Amino acid sequence: MKSISNIISQALKQCQPSAEDVEKLTKVAIETKSLVSRYISPKVVDVVFGGSFAKGTWLKDEVDIDIFIKIDNSVNDIEFGHLGEQVGLQSLKGYNPYLRYSDHPYVEAVINGIRVNVVPCYDVLKGKWKSAADRSPFHTEYIKNNLDDDQRNQVRLLKKFLKSVGIYGADIATGGFSGYVAEIMILKYGMFESVLHAMSNIGVENNVISIDKPDEYSIKNFESQLIIIDPIDHRRNLGTAISAESVGKLVLAARSFLAKPSFDFFIKNEKKLSENYEGLYPNLVIIEFSYKRRSPDVIWGQLKRSLNAISKQLELANFKVIRGICVTDQQETAVFVFLLDSVTLSPYTEKIGPKIFMRKETANFILKNQEKSLITWVDNEMRVSTLIQRETTNAKHFLKLLLTKKIESTGITKGLKGDIQRLFRIYSGDDQTINGLAKEAVRDLITSDERILQ
Amino acid sequence: MKSISNIISQALKQCQPSAEDVEKLTKVAIETKSLVSRYISPKVVDVVFGGSFAKGTWLKDEVDIDIFIKIDNSVNDIEFGHLGEQVGLQSLKGYNPYLRYSDHPYVEAVINGIRVNVVPCYDVLKGKWKSAADRSPFHTEYIKNNLDDDQRNQVRLLKKFLKSVGIYGADIATGGFSGYVAEIMILKYGMFESVLHAMSNIGVENNVISIDKPDEYSIKNFESQLIIIDPIDHRRNLGTAISAESVGKLVLAARSFLAKPSFDFFIKNEKKLSENYEGLYPNLVIIEFSYKRRSPDVIWGQLKRSLNAISKQLELANFKVIRGICVTDQQETAVFVFLLDSVTLSPYTEKIGPKIFMRKETANFILKNQEKSLITWVDNEMRVSTLIQRETTNAKHFLKLLLTKKIESTGITKGLKGDIQRLFRIYSGDDQTINGLAKEAVRDLITSDERILQ
Repeated sequence: MKSISNIISQALKQCQPSAEDVEKLTKVAIETKSLVSRYISPKVVDVVFGGSFAKGTWLKDEVDIDIFIKIDNSVNDIEFGHLGEQVGLQSLKGYNPYLRYSDHPYVEAVINGIRVNVVPCYDVLKGKWKSAADRSPFHTEYIKNNLDDDQRNQVRLLKKFLKSVGIYGADIATGGFSGYVAEIMILKYGMFESVLHAMSNIGVENNVISIDKPDEYSIKNFESQLIIIDPIDHRRNLGTAISAESVGKLVLAARSFLAKPSFDFFIKNEKKLSENYEGLYPNLVIIEFSYKRRSPDVIWGQLKRSLNAISKQLELANFKVIRGICVTDQQETAVFVFLLDSVTLSPYTEKIGPKIFMRKETANFILKNQEKSLITWVDNEMRVSTLIQRETTNAKHFLKLLLTKKIESTGITKGLKGDIQRLFRIYSGDDQTINGLAKEAVRDLITSDERILQ
Repeated sequence: MKSISNIISQALKQCQPSAEDVEKLTKVAIETKSLVSRYISPKVVDVVFGGSFAKGTWLKDEVDIDIFIKIDNSVNDIEFGHLGEQVGLQSLKGYNPYLRYSDHPYVEAVINGIRVNVVPCYDVLKGKWKSAADRSPFHTEYIKNNLDDDQRNQVRLLKKFLKSVGIYGADIATGGFSGYVAEIMILKYGMFESVLHAMSNIGVENNVISIDKPDEYSIKNFESQLIIIDPIDHRRNLGTAISAESVGKLVLAARSFLAKPSFDFFIKNEKKLSENYEGLYPNLVIIEFSYKRRSPDVIWGQLKRSLNAISKQLELANFKVIRGICVTDQQETAVFVFLLDSVTLSPYTEKIGPKIFMRKETANFILKNQEKSLITWVDNEMRVSTLIQRETTNAKHFLKLLLTKKIESTGITKGLKGDIQRLFRIYSGDDQTINGLAKEAVRDLITSDERILQ
């Protein structure tokens, strides 16, 4: 077994950019910024770098350059949007710029092989946030001023580790740890290994990460399993965006890595489906459909909420859902996959009624079930019990009905209903070979990350 | 709808013996008693009539004559048994007498088509019981002295009603209401209809039937759903022998009859299996075996306890038992039938582990399940969950293993183990046609008594 320090120095080589990398990137960054800076005016107050490039925490071969244009505070929402688009598209016009959407639109282009984002924000005082991006320049400043060079590399290690476990990124799809969170964690614990030690020992009572003295009032009002106080806004909990599953994975991964350090934790886990898993195929139900393209956060939000809604409906119909997953290519195709205890249920189910002492309730129970009842008897606890025919015995038929005639009452988000209603396919793993996006989903659903299970 | 009084007078005709019946029976009874009475000696103190004949509550065409021989109190157990056998066999020797067993042996013979039992009991003072039969002469006297002729007919009605619903008889097989209990109920409530009214309204707080002022101490120590105090022994609860199911049936039957009186309640319910039920056949598991003949109460006790034990084992292996039943021809064959939610289970099952905060427990959980585990993951409540291969997926295979290699730890009564181990058959309703005793059991298990479900 290699020592942690050996592994860490090997990993650092993978994620630390070379002097050449830095030079190339800095050149593109400065040139692009100067293009954008031409638009400074009373309405565009300033142009500043943001993101991992500005903070010096970017991973070799994985960097975006973020350029924030600070817009005067008095500009209204609509003009703010227009200005952002205009400045971005105009300044990058030589590089085929295109619009992207997060909370508001921003402009992206690829310059010398490097992705550059031009993002508008308001020029505000700390705490007087007007748009979602307004905190970013404050985050950038804070990290630049507080991290030293060693710690920047520790951030890189942590990001690489999170990426490898599949929990890097605060987007809805991942529900993981953002780059900023990784920086906060290194600031708090000093180095990569200390973060892992801290996370190994996280408990229900021991779940607050705060650089400054934590604000008791805010903490009491935060509900996530892991609370991470934003040092530039104590009322903001960065842990909200992190799913319980991601926190759990980090905790297990940290314990496993510390117990048995391995370079595997810095390489993306390529899950492979072994033959072992084929026995599970008949218990998989897959729903495939296509949708009109929308921004990633929107479609992911809709998919995740709909996944929960469909799971709940399956459970209400007595199908036991062991795990469910949604995936999308972020273009036009989405897939839900459910691993069920069984795709079919017994044609009958027992309903246990009241104790026979409860005269009215007993009579009502018998009357209510009379039509569907096959056998009715008094059980040995003196309750009336009855065996009734189940309406639904096959999960595929059930889902087909749910997604057509009953879609209004399913809880599937409004935004997806139209897409699903247009056309969908439902099949099980023993109906046909699973391919494409569904195969990816199935792989994620029915494999384990052995590295974190030591 | 006929009136209750119409139906009752019709029913009375069916159960009240004619003058001719009484004459014939009395003749046999007196002659037999005089045969037995020849054996009076210092050890055989007296010969008295007992049972429904003595009390005048017998049902037309359904009577036994019980003759009790009272044996002197100073005689020891062994001599008591011998004397009982000797006197019975000697006095009835002209009628092919044979031995039967209840708590102790007694002698039976058929004389002029009427079954006669000669039963030994001790000649004791009230309360100084030495053998199980010693209370009987006191019961007989008590009922003879307290019931008038009208009430004797009301007892007959009640017995016929109980018989028709299948809950007449205090034997273990039936777990129902004895003739003596029927008499006590008529003494308490005055007439048949009033018994039904009382039973219709029975509740958890309202479940004591006592002729005399009830003894609070005893009642507190009685645990059955229906408490019936024996008027000649306040420490005895006649309700103990009555199963919860029988009480429940009586309550429902009483309500149904009062709501919609029908002569059907005085005719044995001939259950027929309609085609509706065939869908249940694949969910039935049947165990058949033969045993060395023993007394009915012994075999029934063993079967009932073993039924519960096997049910429990099935449930522990995750098979959902909807209903189970045992039957025997009381000669040599017995059958267990279980109606399951499904005979087969999914090949995998989910095991939910501790929250990942519990470091030691989480590690133990992962380690413990490692070999059998197919997928392990962190669920959205931060628990480690794992999918493990089930050992048992087919109830028939499970039971086969249980009744062979694992029979010692099943809870099946010692008395039956040898019989079952010698030879048994396990099959499901879709393996083969169900015949004979098994068919009877299945009919009882998967049909309802529609009369009581109004």
